[in-house]
Amino acid sequence: MEVHVTLGPRGEHAARIYRHVLDAILDGRLPAGARLPATRVLAEQLDVSRTTVALAYERLVAEGYLQGRVGAGTFVLATQTVAGDLDRPHATRTRRTVTRANPPTHDPTPRAVWRALPLSDTTVAPLARYPFTIGLPDIGLFGFETWRRFVGQQLRVSALGTGDYGEPEGLIALRAAIARHYGVSRGLRASADDVLVTRGAQQAIDLVTRVVVDPGSTVAVEDPGYPPARHVFTSMGARVVGVPVDEEGLVVDALPGSARLVYVTPSHQYPLGVAMSPARRTALLSWARSAGAVVVEDDYDSEFRYGQRPLQPLHSIDRSSHVVYIGTFSKTMFPALRLGFLIAPASLRCALRTAKQLSDWHTDTVSQAALAHFIDEGLLARHIRRASRHYAARRVAIRSWLGEMGNLLEALPSSAGLHLTALARPGVAIDDAVGRAKASGVVLRSVAPFHVDTPVRDGLMLGYGAIPVERIRDALRLLADALQAT
Amino acid sequence: MEVHVTLGPRGEHAARIYRHVLDAILDGRLPAGARLPATRVLAEQLDVSRTTVALAYERLVAEGYLQGRVGAGTFVLATQTVAGDLDRPHATRTRRTVTRANPPTHDPTPRAVWRALPLSDTTVAPLARYPFTIGLPDIGLFGFETWRRFVGQQLRVSALGTGDYGEPEGLIALRAAIARHYGVSRGLRASADDVLVTRGAQQAIDLVTRVVVDPGSTVAVEDPGYPPARHVFTSMGARVVGVPVDEEGLVVDALPGSARLVYVTPSHQYPLGVAMSPARRTALLSWARSAGAVVVEDDYDSEFRYGQRPLQPLHSIDRSSHVVYIGTFSKTMFPALRLGFLIAPASLRCALRTAKQLSDWHTDTVSQAALAHFIDEGLLARHIRRASRHYAARRVAIRSWLGEMGNLLEALPSSAGLHLTALARPGVAIDDAVGRAKASGVVLRSVAPFHVDTPVRDGLMLGYGAIPVERIRDALRLLADALQAT
Repeated sequence: MEVHVTLGPRGEHAARIYRHVLDAILDGRLPAGARLPATRVLAEQLDVSRTTVALAYERLVAEGYLQGRVGAGTFVLATQTVAGDLDRPHATRTRRTVTRANPPTHDPTPRAVWRALPLSDTTVAPLARYPFTIGLPDIGLFGFETWRRFVGQQLRVSALGTGDYGEPEGLIALRAAIARHYGVSRGLRASADDVLVTRGAQQAIDLVTRVVVDPGSTVAVEDPGYPPARHVFTSMGARVVGVPVDEEGLVVDALPGSARLVYVTPSHQYPLGVAMSPARRTALLSWARSAGAVVVEDDYDSEFRYGQRPLQPLHSIDRSSHVVYIGTFSKTMFPALRLGFLIAPASLRCALRTAKQLSDWHTDTVSQAALAHFIDEGLLARHIRRASRHYAARRVAIRSWLGEMGNLLEALPSSAGLHLTALARPGVAIDDAVGRAKASGVVLRSVAPFHVDTPVRDGLMLGYGAIPVERIRDALRLLADALQAT
Repeated sequence: MEVHVTLGPRGEHAARIYRHVLDAILDGRLPAGARLPATRVLAEQLDVSRTTVALAYERLVAEGYLQGRVGAGTFVLATQTVAGDLDRPHATRTRRTVTRANPPTHDPTPRAVWRALPLSDTTVAPLARYPFTIGLPDIGLFGFETWRRFVGQQLRVSALGTGDYGEPEGLIALRAAIARHYGVSRGLRASADDVLVTRGAQQAIDLVTRVVVDPGSTVAVEDPGYPPARHVFTSMGARVVGVPVDEEGLVVDALPGSARLVYVTPSHQYPLGVAMSPARRTALLSWARSAGAVVVEDDYDSEFRYGQRPLQPLHSIDRSSHVVYIGTFSKTMFPALRLGFLIAPASLRCALRTAKQLSDWHTDTVSQAALAHFIDEGLLARHIRRASRHYAARRVAIRSWLGEMGNLLEALPSSAGLHLTALARPGVAIDDAVGRAKASGVVLRSVAPFHVDTPVRDGLMLGYGAIPVERIRDALRLLADALQAT
C-alpha cells in the first residue's frame, strides 16, 4: 500500500502525516486490514526521521484507527466497542471488528416546509442613486458618536458583572425604560414585568408563533402583507390564510373563524401604509374575544408621525388580554442593532420567557444596558423628534408629486411610518415602470409581490427612509418619466 | 350616565377625559347607545372649560367611539364597517351597529408542549463563597479593556455603513476568522462559506432542530445530557429518547434506528465530562450514514485542554456530510456575548440561513466585526492559552482531592473543559452532601437531575470556571466534610 504525503515546512511533519493517513482511512483508500508502510520505509520516502513517522502512527493507534501487530507491521482497524454502561464499569469488554457496510449515503435534507421558503431580500440596492427603499431608516440622522459612548460605558460596567448568563426576559432597566417610553409615546399601559426584550420584531413574531401556533392550525395575515411574518407561520406548520386589506386596514369580517392567531400592522399597514380605522380596531378585538384568538399587533412603523394624532394601539384598547404588542428599535435607531420587544398577556408570559431562553438564551446585555440609559436620558425621544422633521420634508415632496400624478396613481391615506403607497390606475403597467425607473437609478418596489391569496391592483411603494431630500425631486421626475412611458 | 374623571395638573385635561371615557366604553361601563353628559355639565363638574371637554369628545367621535346626534346629545357607538376592498374603492359602504356579544372570554394559553417545559436556572448562586458552578468561565481572566477597544472601533466604522440589515449567515470577515481559528485549534476543515454565525450554541441547536426535525420524529440525546438542548427538541414536537453514556461516551449500539437527529457532546460530555472514544466516533458516523440521520456535535467545552492531545472532532472525520458542528464563544470569552456558530453540510445550508433570518434576521454586526478582528489579531488564542493555565491549576487541585476521596467518589476520565465529574460509591447520599455543602457556602450540582430515561448512579459536578484557585482547598475540605457526614 502506497501512501502519498506531501510535506510542507518542517515542524508540523508528524501532524501532516497523521492527517493524511487518517484521511486515507476515512475515505476508504486505506481499508480495514490494509498494512501501512513500515516507519523506516515511509521516513525515507518522505525524507523525515523515523521518529516523526512513528509519532503519527502512535497517535492513530491510540485513537483506535491503527493496530500494531508484533512482527507483522501496522494495520488499519475498523472496530467498535461493544457498549458497557456506567452501572457495570468493570464488565469485561469484548472488541469485535465490523466491516464497513458503506451503503449508498444520502446527504441530509431539510424538512419539506423549508424547501418552499425563500430568503428575504436583505440588501435593497444600497448603492442606488435614488433609493426609495422601504423598511430602512436614515442612519445618517442617528448620532453614532453618542451611542458609542453609551455602549462603551456599559462595556466598562459589565467587566464588573458576575459573568453569568442574563435573564431571558431582558434587563429590568431596559424593560422599565421601554414601559415608560411607550407609555408616553404610544399610550401603552404596561409595566416592566409585562415587557420581554427580543432581537427585533422578527424574533418577537417568532416567539409568539412558537408558543401559540400548533402545527396545522390556522393563522390569518394581512393580504397584501409582510412576507417574513408569513414565512415564520409557514415554517411552524401553520395554515396561513390571507385576509384582504382596504383603506380601513384588515377586513375583519373576512377573518376565518378557525384562526388561532392574526397578525396585523395597524399603525402603518405593510405594504399599503394605511392605518386601521377605530371601528375595525374594536371589531378585531371583539372577533378575537369570540374566537379565542391572539392578535399580534406589529407596531413596527408607528413612531414617525405626521400631523394627525395617532390612534390608540390595539393593546391599549384591549380589555380581554388577547393582544401581543410588538415594537422594534430597528427603525427608530438602526436595523443592525437587533433590539425590539413584545408585551404579552400574562397567560403567555412564562412560555414566552422559556421560548426566548431556548432560542438564544437572552439578548446581549451590553446593548440592552446602553439602550436603557439612552432612553432614560431622553435621547431616543429627541432622535425621533429630530428625524421626524427630516422624514416629514421628504414625505411632503412625495405627497405633492402623488397629487400631480393623480391620473396614473391613486395615493393611499397614511399618517405615519417611512413609506407611502400608491395604487396604479387602470392601464398603468407597474412592472414596466419599475424596470424603466431602475435603469435610471431609481430603485423602488411594487405591491404585487406582497400578495398571497387575493389578486389585487398593483402599486408602488415609495420609501423615504434612505433617500436624501435633495435627491427626491430628481428621483420623482425620473419616476414620472418611467410611469408616463407605459 | 355618570362619568367619574379625576383630573391632575392642568394642560393634560382633555387627554385625561378622553382616556377615562374611552376606558369606560371599552370596559362596558358605558355601553353602546349610552348618552354622555353634555359638555357643559361635565365641564362644570370637573371645573374645566367646555372647550376642554369638547376636545376630548371630538377625538372620540373622530375615532368612531362616539356619535353626536343633532339636538339629542353624544352617544356611545359600537359599530363596524362592512368591508369593501381595494378593487371596489368606490363601492357604497353600509354601516351597521352590532351588539357586543360579550361571550365568556378566556385568556390565550400557550401550546400544551410549553406547559411542561421548565426555565433553566440561569443564576447559579453567583454570590456563593465557593461556587463550583458549571458552564461558566472566569470572566476575571478576560481582558474587557481590550474587547471594549475592539467594539468601540467597530461602532465607529458602522456609522459609515449602509444602514441596511446584515446577512443572515453572518459577516464574511467573522466567518473567515472562525474557519481559520478552528482549523488550527480543532482541526476543522471548513471555509468561510461553511460557517453560519449564531447567537451562542443555543441558537445553533435551535436552528438545526427547526430545519431537520419534523414534529413527531425521534431525536436521540445523551442520557444524562444537556437539558436546554433536550427542551428545544421537545418544544418542536420531537419524541426525545435518552441513550446511555459510559466512559467512552454515547453508547452507539443503543441508538434508536428511527432517530432523525442525535445530539452529542464528544469532547467533554455534559454532564459527565468524558470524551467520546475514537471507536465510538467512527461507529456513530457509520450509524448516521446508515440511518440517514444528522449528528449534532456540540463542541461547547473543547478549547480548554489539559495534557492529552485532543481527539479529532466528528466533523473532521465525517466523510459523508452527516455532522453539524456547533461552537460557542460563551466559554472562551464570556456568556453574555451571545456569539457562536455552526458548520453544516451543504445540503442544509440554504434552509439554515432562512431559518436564521426568520428567527432574528442576523446576529448584531458590531459584535461580529469586533470578534473577527479579535480572532485575527490572535487575541482569542492568546486568551485561551492564558486562561487554560489558570484552569489547569484549579483542575489539578480538584483531581488530587478526588484521588484522596476514592472511597466515596469515582472520578470519571476527562481531558478538557471547565468541570470534572465524579460518581458516588455505593452508600454515598449525594443529595444530602450537596445540601450540607450548600450550608457551608459550597455550591455544586448533582448528576441525577440531568438524566431522562435511565436511572443511574448519582454524582457530583465540580466546575472550576468560577471559583478562584485560592479558595479551592477550603472549598474541597468543606465538601469532604459534607460527604463524610453521609
